[in-house]
Amino acid sequence: MKLIVIGGVAAGMSAASKLKRMDKDAEIAVYERGSFLSYGACGLPYFVSGENDDYTKMIARTKEQFESMGMDIFLRHEVVKVVPEKKQVMVRDLETKRVFLDHYDKLMIATGTSPIVPPFSGGNLKNIKVLKTLEDGIVLKEAADGEGVQNVVIVGGGYIGIEAAEAMGHLGKNVRVIELSDRILRTFDKDITDLAESELIRQGVYLNLNEKVLGFIGSETVEKVQTDKGIYPADLVLLSLGVKPATGFLEGSGILLSANGAVLIDREMRTNIPDVYAAGDCAVVYNKVMEENAYIPLGTNANKCGRIAGANIAGSHTKYVGTLGSAAIKVFDFELARTGMSEEDAVRLRQDYTTVFVKSADHPAYYPDQTPIWIKLICDKRTRRILGAQAAGNKGVVLRIDIFAVAIHAKMSADELGMTDLCYAPPFAGVWDAVHIASNAVK
Amino acid sequence: MKLIVIGGVAAGMSAASKLKRMDKDAEIAVYERGSFLSYGACGLPYFVSGENDDYTKMIARTKEQFESMGMDIFLRHEVVKVVPEKKQVMVRDLETKRVFLDHYDKLMIATGTSPIVPPFSGGNLKNIKVLKTLEDGIVLKEAADGEGVQNVVIVGGGYIGIEAAEAMGHLGKNVRVIELSDRILRTFDKDITDLAESELIRQGVYLNLNEKVLGFIGSETVEKVQTDKGIYPADLVLLSLGVKPATGFLEGSGILLSANGAVLIDREMRTNIPDVYAAGDCAVVYNKVMEENAYIPLGTNANKCGRIAGANIAGSHTKYVGTLGSAAIKVFDFELARTGMSEEDAVRLRQDYTTVFVKSADHPAYYPDQTPIWIKLICDKRTRRILGAQAAGNKGVVLRIDIFAVAIHAKMSADELGMTDLCYAPPFAGVWDAVHIASNAVK
Repeated sequence: MKLIVIGGVAAGMSAASKLKRMDKDAEIAVYERGSFLSYGACGLPYFVSGENDDYTKMIARTKEQFESMGMDIFLRHEVVKVVPEKKQVMVRDLETKRVFLDHYDKLMIATGTSPIVPPFSGGNLKNIKVLKTLEDGIVLKEAADGEGVQNVVIVGGGYIGIEAAEAMGHLGKNVRVIELSDRILRTFDKDITDLAESELIRQGVYLNLNEKVLGFIGSETVEKVQTDKGIYPADLVLLSLGVKPATGFLEGSGILLSANGAVLIDREMRTNIPDVYAAGDCAVVYNKVMEENAYIPLGTNANKCGRIAGANIAGSHTKYVGTLGSAAIKVFDFELARTGMSEEDAVRLRQDYTTVFVKSADHPAYYPDQTPIWIKLICDKRTRRILGAQAAGNKGVVLRIDIFAVAIHAKMSADELGMTDLCYAPPFAGVWDAVHIASNAVK
Repeated sequence: MKLIVIGGVAAGMSAASKLKRMDKDAEIAVYERGSFLSYGACGLPYFVSGENDDYTKMIARTKEQFESMGMDIFLRHEVVKVVPEKKQVMVRDLETKRVFLDHYDKLMIATGTSPIVPPFSGGNLKNIKVLKTLEDGIVLKEAADGEGVQNVVIVGGGYIGIEAAEAMGHLGKNVRVIELSDRILRTFDKDITDLAESELIRQGVYLNLNEKVLGFIGSETVEKVQTDKGIYPADLVLLSLGVKPATGFLEGSGILLSANGAVLIDREMRTNIPDVYAAGDCAVVYNKVMEENAYIPLGTNANKCGRIAGANIAGSHTKYVGTLGSAAIKVFDFELARTGMSEEDAVRLRQDYTTVFVKSADHPAYYPDQTPIWIKLICDKRTRRILGAQAAGNKGVVLRIDIFAVAIHAKMSADELGMTDLCYAPPFAGVWDAVHIASNAVK
């Protein structure tokens, strides 16, 4: 049995590793477009900021390590076509430009995403970057460390844009974030993003909301950013306008894609074509609380779904329990985290919901360094089941959202979580934890 | 309707407050033996250490605040007898020594505990203290701050003893903990207490295990502690040998007690006598994972059960979902937390169980200050349901045990928690969190 894996970062290498653990005789070939395998891309902002000065720390396993597990690894090799009726893939060696065919018994598609880069005027000036791959990170860090680079403009206020803003702030740059919509980090509701925006501004970041970038001005290197409202100096621009599934090469293959180009899969990671699996950011993912497929490109889903794909390729029939869209981000001195439905989701899904937004604290006032925690909950109005939770604060926020994630996963009501026995000791939590206080505030 | 509350700290004032919120016309009289109401006794070690220099911060609400809610509050008043057939209590005013009767329609028993103090030889020497009430805390702090107090011996290595050891260490004392059994903090299994003991020793605390205190030596003030193994200098001794329910005054009342003297109650906080309720450290509590009553004197249970008692006194029929024995303690630079069954519990309950003990980390190596986390899980061997979890580490431990607490509460299997969507961002967690790694390690 030969498995071909297209894309060797999160889902792809999770699948390959799981298959090898379950069937050490399986033949595995991995084609990866980039120069690195199996890295934690979410660590890139902290490499750019210099908080981590060694990019190899982001690499979970190297080519050599995977090879010693018995896999054939091909870096800088791009799969340009899949032909399911012949069980073939067409591969281009990006170094030699040679194109060749390879045959699979099972195929795993794990190509992730490509950054969305609209055709801006002046878009080909130097020092206009993206941050997606490890290579991007190395290039961006070099650019940021370049002489005279002081004004950094970040276009797009999503996770990557805001993490990059912090990284650039950490490097002492003048940082401006330009965002088309009326707020940043749109997977959070406004109650929470208001807090994040205040923190960014408090840290000296210029925040331009409701503003559309029209193009870039400069002779060779970018010098200015032009928007529909003004012109801003820029020695370096990061485009972080979101990502799209890297599935263009599947055109004509017969493998079904969603409207945005994500591979359609079931909860066993099977596409519509026999023996073809997909997972990770190039594919949809089952959302447990929404009870429908969604497009949520996060490393958490990619790793879990990749592992399940590997097990199922080995002959298992494991279904993914489903994502909750749990996500966290550090915004300077603030933690933000979310899980389940946002209020925007609840409106879109015509949920009969109720919300609370409660300020409490990480621990009692009788232990030093008490800090506030804001929690927003979205609950079903009739059953009082918790559907979503979001929080912000200086510390102890992310793991509390994990507490809600388990409660949402287990379909608990606010009332039940409000009486669940959580730990209490003054350095860590109150006798009624912030989680209890928010849960018990649901009307 | 008149409610008499005996004991005005956690469960008692929770019940009184809840009743007032539900029925503002209810007449409430509170008899409290001490001088303070409604305080967070778990904050006492941090007052003794000086980390909190204001004991009023531990007081959630004062006498005056409760009075303004319409309650009659009697401090330094001890109930010495309950006569259910007449619905009377006999009260002694500890200041005037006057004894009088009062009549109730409903009675709430919330007298908490008394410290266990065996009759040691030399036990009445000066500077031999206990730490139970806020008054005890003030007295202990004064003693610790006394001139020439350098050698502090703590008898008993439970929660209070170990927190006091840290407090005394914080004050720069020479600290010795003498514990009769072979390890400290016995609600944890040995895998975890070994780590805590190493941390204590690393911090310079002398730890004498398997050692029995025989008595104290001194002329007026304590000077030495004598054990079955040696004699140690002591300018101050803290006796922290555990607590017993403060229910002696119920003898002959007909109210049923457990073997250790805790008031027997059902999940609605009702005793065997109509209109008599009890909750908190003076009573048993329903343990959800053990599916039986247990004696677990913790502020978490007291506050929740007190609130439920108040609601039920007001006419509701709310059952407590049950405790998990969740508890946390800071041991210098270490966090320890536990929830559900320990391995010792599993053995006692003849559970067919399996365990794992896994070392992972709070976040990935590609973000600074990664620290280790050790997690032990106890799972049902057949269903793989998680029954208990314990952990230790420098940070992010307690809230992770809360994640397990919700999973145990919701009867989740290790496999399901191992695939539940928790948050990932490099400053906070790995893409597979320590919680996942431990869950997925269960054989």
